[in-house]
Order: sequence, then C-alpha cells, then structure tokens
Amino acid sequence: MRLAETPCENPRFFAHGIKQMPARIIDGKAIAQQIRDDLAARIAAVREGLGRSPHLAIAIVGDDPASHVYVRNKLRTAEDSGMGVTLETLPGDSTLDETLAVVERFNMSAQIDGILVQSPLPAGMGRNAAQRVFDTIDPGKDVDGFSPISAGHLSQKRSGFAPCTPAGIIEMLDRERLAIEGARAVVIGRSDIVGKPMAMLLMHRNATVTVCHSRTRDLPGVAREADILVAAIGRAGLVTQDFVKPGAVVIDVGMNRVTDADEARQLLASQPKRLKLFERRGSVLVGDVHPNVAETAGALTPVPGGVGPLTIAMLMANTVRAAELRLSG
Amino acid sequence: MRLAETPCENPRFFAHGIKQMPARIIDGKAIAQQIRDDLAARIAAVREGLGRSPHLAIAIVGDDPASHVYVRNKLRTAEDSGMGVTLETLPGDSTLDETLAVVERFNMSAQIDGILVQSPLPAGMGRNAAQRVFDTIDPGKDVDGFSPISAGHLSQKRSGFAPCTPAGIIEMLDRERLAIEGARAVVIGRSDIVGKPMAMLLMHRNATVTVCHSRTRDLPGVAREADILVAAIGRAGLVTQDFVKPGAVVIDVGMNRVTDADEARQLLASQPKRLKLFERRGSVLVGDVHPNVAETAGALTPVPGGVGPLTIAMLMANTVRAAELRLSG
Repeated sequence: MRLAETPCENPRFFAHGIKQMPARIIDGKAIAQQIRDDLAARIAAVREGLGRSPHLAIAIVGDDPASHVYVRNKLRTAEDSGMGVTLETLPGDSTLDETLAVVERFNMSAQIDGILVQSPLPAGMGRNAAQRVFDTIDPGKDVDGFSPISAGHLSQKRSGFAPCTPAGIIEMLDRERLAIEGARAVVIGRSDIVGKPMAMLLMHRNATVTVCHSRTRDLPGVAREADILVAAIGRAGLVTQDFVKPGAVVIDVGMNRVTDADEARQLLASQPKRLKLFERRGSVLVGDVHPNVAETAGALTPVPGGVGPLTIAMLMANTVRAAELRLSG
Repeated sequence: MRLAETPCENPRFFAHGIKQMPARIIDGKAIAQQIRDDLAARIAAVREGLGRSPHLAIAIVGDDPASHVYVRNKLRTAEDSGMGVTLETLPGDSTLDETLAVVERFNMSAQIDGILVQSPLPAGMGRNAAQRVFDTIDPGKDVDGFSPISAGHLSQKRSGFAPCTPAGIIEMLDRERLAIEGARAVVIGRSDIVGKPMAMLLMHRNATVTVCHSRTRDLPGVAREADILVAAIGRAGLVTQDFVKPGAVVIDVGMNRVTDADEARQLLASQPKRLKLFERRGSVLVGDVHPNVAETAGALTPVPGGVGPLTIAMLMANTVRAAELRLSG
C-alpha cells in the first residue's frame, strides 16, 4: 500500500499506540464531476464529427419506483452533460418479445450510440429474460457491459465496454492516486455486474486479486489481507473493523435500505445527522461497510455519495466512447 | 482442506516432527482414460441420433513440429474414442483470410461438431490473428473455449464450452475427491486459456480464489495460503517447496523443455530415470513445479502424465457435448 500520505495514515504508527486519524473519505460526487467535465471536449468532438450529440437510449419495463429514480438520474446526468437521450417506458405486463423489439429498434437506429435496459425486469418475464435482453443488445452499443460478449472481451483484456460500477472504481482509485499495481485486492461478492468484472479490472491493472463470497471461510481474515477491499454483497454493514487491515482502502458498493430502528441505530451511532434522517423518514440507505470502519481504513467511500455517482459518470463515458467508435469506424 | 485420507497426509502431523509421506501423485493418464470411457455411451447415443459419430475438425497452419505432435495426439485420441476427424493443413505462408475461410467452411458443415485451430499461428499473420480466428469460430462449435463469447458465458456461469485444461483440472479434482468448495485456491498465471478460466471455474465451485502473476509481491507467501495451488506460468520448476502449504493439492500445468544440463540436474535430482533420459536426448519436459514439492504437497500432478492427458480428454468431452447440442437443438 502506497497510499500513506501522512504518518497518521501509515499502519506502522498504529502499532506504536499513536491514535489513528479517521480515514480519508473519498468524495465520489466530486470525482464523478471531474469525469463528466473531462468528457465535455469529447462530446463536442462527437457533435462536430457526427452532426449530433452522443445519444443514450434507455428502456424501462414496469413501475418499480427505485428503478424509475435510477433511470431519471441517468437521463438527467446525460442531458446535463450535453448528450441526447431517448426513454422508452413499457408497461409492467409487457412480454419479453416486446422488450426485445425495443432493443432491436435501438440497435438499428443510427441516432443511438448507447443502449441500457434497466434492471430488474418484471419477474413475469421469466428467469432468463435479462440474459435474453443482454444477448440482444448490439455489442457496439452495450454501454452497461452486461452482454456475454462484453464480459468475454473484458476477460480477454480486449477493448470493449466494462460494467460501469467497477470501471468507475478503477477511475476513482486512479484519480485519488491510490496505487493498484502490486496491491493485494479482495473483492467480496461475485456478481456479473460488480464482483467478477471488478476482479478482472483490478487484475488487469496488476493487483493480486482474491474474490470472496458466501462460501468463503474466515471472511474477515481473508478480507484483512487486502490493501484494497471492495464490498459488493448487499448486506448492510457486514464489513466491520475486523475485516479491515489498518490503512487499507475500502470501497463500499452496497446500497441497502434499512428500515429497522435498532439496526439503523447500531449502524449510524457515529452519524447523528443520518440517524435523525432515519427517524424522520423511517428508512435510510446504508452501504455494505459499517461506518465505524472509518476508524481503521486509510480511505473509504461513503454511502451515499461514493460509488453511486461514479457509476453514472462511467455510463456517460461509455456512451461517449460508443459514439466515438461510430465516428471512427 | 479435506483431502487428508491418511494421517501422514495431514499437515497436523508435520508440526509434531513425524516424517512426512511424499505426496500422492495423481495419475492424469488414468483419469483421462476414465473420462473417455464415460464418453463411450454418449458417443453411441450421438451416433444413434445423428446417424454419424461426433466429429472434430482441426486446422493447423505451418510446420511447427511440437504443434503437429499435439494435433496428432488429439486426432488419434478422437479416433480411438470412436469419433470422426477432419484435418486441414495449411502451409506456413497462408494468409489469415485463407485460415478464416477454412474456419467458415467448418462452421457451415453440418458434419462437423467441434472446431479447433491449433495455436500458435505463424507470426507472419499478425498479432491479432488468433483473436480473429477465435472470433470467427461458431460459438456452438468452439470446443477449445477460446472465443470471447465462450469466455463471456464462462464468466457469467452460463452453459458453454470452458477451455479444456482448466475444465480437465476440475474434473480431476472431482474424480480424486479433492474438495473444492470452501478451499482457498491460488492460481499462478493469468492467461486466457488457463489462468483466468481456471479461476472462474474454481470460483463457481465455491473456492475462494486468488490469481497471482508476474507483479504479485511475495509470490511464495501468497501461494502458501492455498489449499489448491495451480501453477500455469511456463517457468520450469518455479514453484518450490516454500510456495506450498504442507498437505496442499498442487496442480502443475507447465510444460517446459529444459535443455541446460545444470538446470536439468537441479530439477531432476530426485528422478534419476528422467535425468538419464535427459542425458540421452539432450532435453526433457519439466513442469512449473519443482519435483521436490512432492515432499511438501498432499497431492501433486506429475509432468508429463498429469494435466496434459486431461486436456485432450476434455477436448473429446466438449466435442461430444457439441454433437449432443446439435442433436437436441
């Protein structure tokens, strides 16, 4: 780990009983803004070359309120970045074929660079609906990076679209000058959209990567080997201080809605403002990392305001790149 | 690790100074024969259903003697298994387009179930020639599992063809009743054809997997965490006893031709027969694992006669499965 910039961030000092400084809290919003600022010139170049802005098309099926919030955030960010957007809303009782027909139409359109079908699809579409959708999206427009061909290109370190959350985490580590090469990285969670592509990207950047999951024995012990610890399991506050090597970089991908008052109090004991928010609203969003990990980690992403904004920024970056590929190819 | 079957294989006993038994040497040839025996009924069923045997087509470009030996082994094994084979030999100065034309012809043929283009292709074809070939092979006939879509399906744990060497190692662990679930596995090497798919397959079987490579710090220390250690780096005898936790399962994927007499003597000190072979022939095949690891490991695959035969057996299994898919679909 080469992140120690002050003596207090250096694990050596803990051993000598010097009181530890709390972790640097990484400002995901600010980094996302930097990423989007850096896209402005590229968006202008696309506009110059194609005679139109990079264009993101989103399809959403059904009324899930959280999904609609996510989609709205993505569309608003795209518009704020000067990109074109299309939204296709299908009723919740739409068939898979109707959904695939929208994807095919997006595939065919020369006006659309990036395609995203918001997950989850209604359960009524069947277990393999998402896979069928990802199989159908034109790989050149697969800005979510969920298609098997995108996963294959990622695994083979070929150019293609990496899923936005892990790609955003790499971008964040780089912009925060947190060294990846040679680090030991531990990824908790092995999903197709975060855990596995995260491991791939870290490995391609020369980290030594371990992937943990529900069947891992001594999870805290394995996690403690990490210089970079990525938590993507979807369990509020699962990662406690005993999971964290002093001074490690801890990335919290979790977004868990907590509605139980005891749980909220336990998790937010050190965050009176957020606890008050809970008491007013009856629910609060909490990551996979217990907030008191800030006392052990060297750097930590907060929830909210950490990885979330980066994910959306990378969706923009992927869409711009898709437009650039259209321009060059 | 739940492989301890005798007290002498149990790491506990080493600590008390009891002399360790040498590792169980895993007989890859015998396991490969079992796998092929188990295919016989399935081959007969294909013959019944399709009116012909499962059929493997191989293309080879150029005169590389080692490649021709490999191809001959594959074809002979296929024929011995009662399968049909086609061999297309292209001269070393063939163009990539000529090679792709052969692949396209194999793709179109309803008589061919599995396609393999022997690596390496002549350097004159350009750096991306192999990728272009893998991109062209029909995913339903990609029995080597090297296409991006096969890599993507593997990553996403969907049905498809896994590369033969890592698939053969999983088959071997299962047939030797060496537990994968919950084990810590360390894979040294991150190639597309062994390291990465090996990590994926072990993870999907609920091992906690770490991938090491040239940039890993303290490689012996990380390797020593492994209950299952897979060496796939292509460096003769790199993995020495200090890499191995007592009692661990060590899988040697290396196949390195050693021609230096001092190196041969150092590596084969405990294997006088093989050293004599070297002295007669001037060269010898050695794995990535130093033979004296047998004194530390609980189980070890030899080179030759370990992983090699399993790779070919899995090529047969993949080809039979391709034929079965044709039959059912």
